[in-house]
Amino acid sequence: MDIAIIGAGRISEIHSENLSKIKDVNIKYYYDPDPNISQKIASKYGASDVNLKQILEDSSIEAVFILSPTSFHYEQIKLFASKRINIFCEKPIDLSLDRTVEIVELVRSTNIKFMLGFNRRFDPQFIKLNEAISNGLVGDIHQLVITSRDPNPPDFQYLEKSGGIFRDMMIHDFDMANWLLKDEIIDLSSYGSRLIDSSLAAIKDYDTADVMLKTKSGAICHIINSRKAVYGYDQRIEVFGSKGMIQALNNTETNLVLSSSKSIELEKPMYFFLERYKQAFESEINHFIHCIKNDINPSVSAEDGYKALALAELAIKKIHNLN
Amino acid sequence: MDIAIIGAGRISEIHSENLSKIKDVNIKYYYDPDPNISQKIASKYGASDVNLKQILEDSSIEAVFILSPTSFHYEQIKLFASKRINIFCEKPIDLSLDRTVEIVELVRSTNIKFMLGFNRRFDPQFIKLNEAISNGLVGDIHQLVITSRDPNPPDFQYLEKSGGIFRDMMIHDFDMANWLLKDEIIDLSSYGSRLIDSSLAAIKDYDTADVMLKTKSGAICHIINSRKAVYGYDQRIEVFGSKGMIQALNNTETNLVLSSSKSIELEKPMYFFLERYKQAFESEINHFIHCIKNDINPSVSAEDGYKALALAELAIKKIHNLN
Amino acid sequence: MDIAIIGAGRISEIHSENLSKIKDVNIKYYYDPDPNISQKIASKYGASDVNLKQILEDSSIEAVFILSPTSFHYEQIKLFASKRINIFCEKPIDLSLDRTVEIVELVRSTNIKFMLGFNRRFDPQFIKLNEAISNGLVGDIHQLVITSRDPNPPDFQYLEKSGGIFRDMMIHDFDMANWLLKDEIIDLSSYGSRLIDSSLAAIKDYDTADVMLKTKSGAICHIINSRKAVYGYDQRIEVFGSKGMIQALNNTETNLVLSSSKSIELEKPMYFFLERYKQAFESEINHFIHCIKNDINPSVSAEDGYKALALAELAIKKIHNLN
Amino acid sequence: MDIAIIGAGRISEIHSENLSKIKDVNIKYYYDPDPNISQKIASKYGASDVNLKQILEDSSIEAVFILSPTSFHYEQIKLFASKRINIFCEKPIDLSLDRTVEIVELVRSTNIKFMLGFNRRFDPQFIKLNEAISNGLVGDIHQLVITSRDPNPPDFQYLEKSGGIFRDMMIHDFDMANWLLKDEIIDLSSYGSRLIDSSLAAIKDYDTADVMLKTKSGAICHIINSRKAVYGYDQRIEVFGSKGMIQALNNTETNLVLSSSKSIELEKPMYFFLERYKQAFESEINHFIHCIKNDINPSVSAEDGYKALALAELAIKKIHNLN
Repeated sequence: MDIAIIGAGRISEIHSENLSKIKDVNIKYYYDPDPNISQKIASKYGASDVNLKQILEDSSIEAVFILSPTSFHYEQIKLFASKRINIFCEKPIDLSLDRTVEIVELVRSTNIKFMLGFNRRFDPQFIKLNEAISNGLVGDIHQLVITSRDPNPPDFQYLEKSGGIFRDMMIHDFDMANWLLKDEIIDLSSYGSRLIDSSLAAIKDYDTADVMLKTKSGAICHIINSRKAVYGYDQRIEVFGSKGMIQALNNTETNLVLSSSKSIELEKPMYFFLERYKQAFESEINHFIHCIKNDINPSVSAEDGYKALALAELAIKKIHNLN
Repeated sequence: MDIAIIGAGRISEIHSENLSKIKDVNIKYYYDPDPNISQKIASKYGASDVNLKQILEDSSIEAVFILSPTSFHYEQIKLFASKRINIFCEKPIDLSLDRTVEIVELVRSTNIKFMLGFNRRFDPQFIKLNEAISNGLVGDIHQLVITSRDPNPPDFQYLEKSGGIFRDMMIHDFDMANWLLKDEIIDLSSYGSRLIDSSLAAIKDYDTADVMLKTKSGAICHIINSRKAVYGYDQRIEVFGSKGMIQALNNTETNLVLSSSKSIELEKPMYFFLERYKQAFESEINHFIHCIKNDINPSVSAEDGYKALALAELAIKKIHNLN
Repeated sequence: MDIAIIGAGRISEIHSENLSKIKDVNIKYYYDPDPNISQKIASKYGASDVNLKQILEDSSIEAVFILSPTSFHYEQIKLFASKRINIFCEKPIDLSLDRTVEIVELVRSTNIKFMLGFNRRFDPQFIKLNEAISNGLVGDIHQLVITSRDPNPPDFQYLEKSGGIFRDMMIHDFDMANWLLKDEIIDLSSYGSRLIDSSLAAIKDYDTADVMLKTKSGAICHIINSRKAVYGYDQRIEVFGSKGMIQALNNTETNLVLSSSKSIELEKPMYFFLERYKQAFESEINHFIHCIKNDINPSVSAEDGYKALALAELAIKKIHNLN
Repeated sequence: MDIAIIGAGRISEIHSENLSKIKDVNIKYYYDPDPNISQKIASKYGASDVNLKQILEDSSIEAVFILSPTSFHYEQIKLFASKRINIFCEKPIDLSLDRTVEIVELVRSTNIKFMLGFNRRFDPQFIKLNEAISNGLVGDIHQLVITSRDPNPPDFQYLEKSGGIFRDMMIHDFDMANWLLKDEIIDLSSYGSRLIDSSLAAIKDYDTADVMLKTKSGAICHIINSRKAVYGYDQRIEVFGSKGMIQALNNTETNLVLSSSKSIELEKPMYFFLERYKQAFESEINHFIHCIKNDINPSVSAEDGYKALALAELAIKKIHNLN
């Protein structure tokens, strides 16, 4: 299967490495506005560094991976969808809810395979957690607590274009909430604070963001975000229900315990998302290729992207009302 | 020191047992509207079973323990405060915020020692947690998560008179939030659900109640309450700050681990508050007696009772606005 | 029940405090060669400071607690057994196996209640562990690992008279092995090292001592002793069997977890035996008093003391053969 | 680099998969007495299925992987060493100590790169443990406890030819002891029992085997082996020293915790060595290839194989003396 990759940054490297391991997948093209980096990665994976037009005109291309900055997604999706090329797109589809709706409808009408990179759905731990819920191990869900803290904030340049913590970071947790709760969200409360970097005020962003939401059935969900946890990447989920509770705790490199005169020390969580979700990145790509080969719809749709973004918009709106 | 105990129910038994162990403390009187139970406990601890008037008229009584149902607290506090007798009172002072304000002022004007039974402040684990915060181990607090779930709901009769889950149960967690955050709370969001017992609708109460609140400095706190956790009494606190995180996990009877062909099993948390807060009940009584002996103001004041109740009222109001 | 206490050191204080809490028990006499300390403790518990003769001649005394240094046990047991007074004696009975046999026979012939202070058998954690074994939770025992490390060595003066690490310290673990294995021990291997304090060579003692033993049924047991674990008192037991494994892990004061930029820190184990076995000390005394009141034989007999000492002797002999 | 693989069984599949991922490595040949399985694996990896002679005569072959049953190792090593081909050999070199010595000397004289498959030395957890020791985190080692239990015994056919539990299974733990203790072992005690399968008596083997050994410096080490742990593959190491203790606990697939009305459940350890040591198998192969490319001696030598086997022989001899 011939494929093309749009974007040659860090996430492109991860997906390229995973794609290169899949039998029958041939990375034919790379495109990036910066030819220095696209040439380099193209040569590493035996592909050609081309422009978008060349990719669009090559009818052998079965799938394109849109791994460019968010602001390019909308136009690039439209371009490739018009040629009925299957699309894997990094999250989010777009920072505008209207344009996201447009893409959702475009994908539906063109009938292409479209998958959004909500990689956490492919984490072995969360898959097992979700199966446990589906198998009734905790009964009906009453309360859900999603903790998601980064080890360090991105640089200001990134943050400026990110759309803010709710659209850029908490969007993953909104998707987790939708995925695990399997229920309509009917109300949401939100708070945001600048406790790490007060300069975020200039771009109306926050570094500490918390949400509480309620579903139609009455389940209540807490989402707890911080841009800086000094002990590392904190990714936990607690599902409390009528029959019990299941918790996904943090993962560590090893299970060493050091007992000294000072304390009993466990290892810190894995450093950041590349380490923590290594397996998830590999699995999501495998899933997408498998869906194309077997004519199955990918499990993460454009609609899922819309739903998560809609919650982010609501959270932002509620904070603005508050302030 | 001669003391009197008002109320002869379950909590009276606990406090009596702890008081009987303190040197120099003499339980002189018991009073309860039901003479059957007051006679029994009076005889057990070598005290006299009397009426309120007799206690009020005995000038040797240095302190009274008001352990009666909440609806009696207001009148009984006024009675003993008027005689300038020191008072230990079980929480809450009253279900009405106005009457609580009245008591706060009465206590202030009479200058008696008054202590409210927020026992969790005397739990060794939470004391150490609070010290860690004060010692700067987690830096500035950014997020606080208080989980408090009971193993089983009380009976309907109790619930009817309880004032509802926010005033009866979450009031402990509001006090914990005030105690640990050491900051003014400027906003609060709340949800309530009936997921365990739908008949609570008749008394406008909930069995699942969640709150998110924000302080002046920007710290965000989550409170997670349920009336029924099948795995037992779930009492955890997580404090996240600029320098790290400290968590108080559940306590168990022993630290046994059973590895079988099915799983690795740890013990369930201690069953309920009598077991979990055994040491706290003993310490709070010791503290109150110590304060009287040494003319020190107890660390839990009537104002603390007011502050916690005010948050409960706000939480209830916000839910009503929502529905 | 009138009782007398022989010895007024640290262990006497612990047992006195626990005895003073038992209804119907009256500490009538204390005896210690050093009247300064016996007068002090006698006055604290409202008892008389007397000599041994006075105690022997008071026919109201139902039980005596022999809490003197080991070298006095043999004569004192004989003294009180001859008067048919029930005896609680701190471990070990004596450092000589022959004299221990003599006491075992004396106790048998006089028919008094005799209990040896193997307090660990009364630890709630180990009781539950033993019940789990008896209830078949791990099936047949295949391997047993007993880890017992002190936080700090006693001073040299104590060690000189202690009988050595096998008779003084590991004797507890030998008793645990006998208690849990419920089987005849048919072979034993032992090693001893001086890794903490080389001056122990002068008294032919060790600070690091390890034993491996085998029972008739083929179960194999490891005992791991050290006089100095810098992280605190390390008291763990692992029972491995045909149906699984049960482990008793260390106990801590609280269950706090501190996550910092350096590590995830748990609390160290409780400092030493007074803290770790607080409940056990209370329970063993209650058991002994209960046995006297109800004419039941105490669960820890003089024979148990003999059996544990015999294993210590064997361990020492094997090391001597080796060196 | 052209290589050949001798043996086409389960371990051959693992190493083949890992070798196929290394750039510049070309699996040119497979040989197995059973052409059915060698043809299959050769075709999977694009290699030729040949006889030993063809491999020996192809001067392009830089390394051979001897993954055949143990009984063939001796002859095959001699064959390839005579042609000065570098050799990776699965453990053990041979079941005879004399023949092992012969191989050690042959390897030395031919100056080839020779590496023995003690894969555990390449486990990330044990590497970090060993580094912690080398960095002085636990100070001088006083006690070492190595627990190694399989989830299920191999079949009788395998066991018959295995050389027994000490040579086949505990040999890994002897190597761990040598690797971690970095000291001469001066004494050893051993016990063996048949608690799982009494039919092992026919082949003088055991299913439960325990060793205690002592080093020159006085450190004491316990090795605890069982052929059947119903809760899964139990691979733990505890290093206790003058400055503290470091423990390598079991690894699990995920860090989920399930709290139910019955208990708090953690996941069982990873099932068996293929899962548990997946990373180690990959790393050891990478190390060997790296050593050839860079003319470095592999970190696991033929001498290491001899040392571990010598301890196994001593353990067996001591048991025979006992019985």
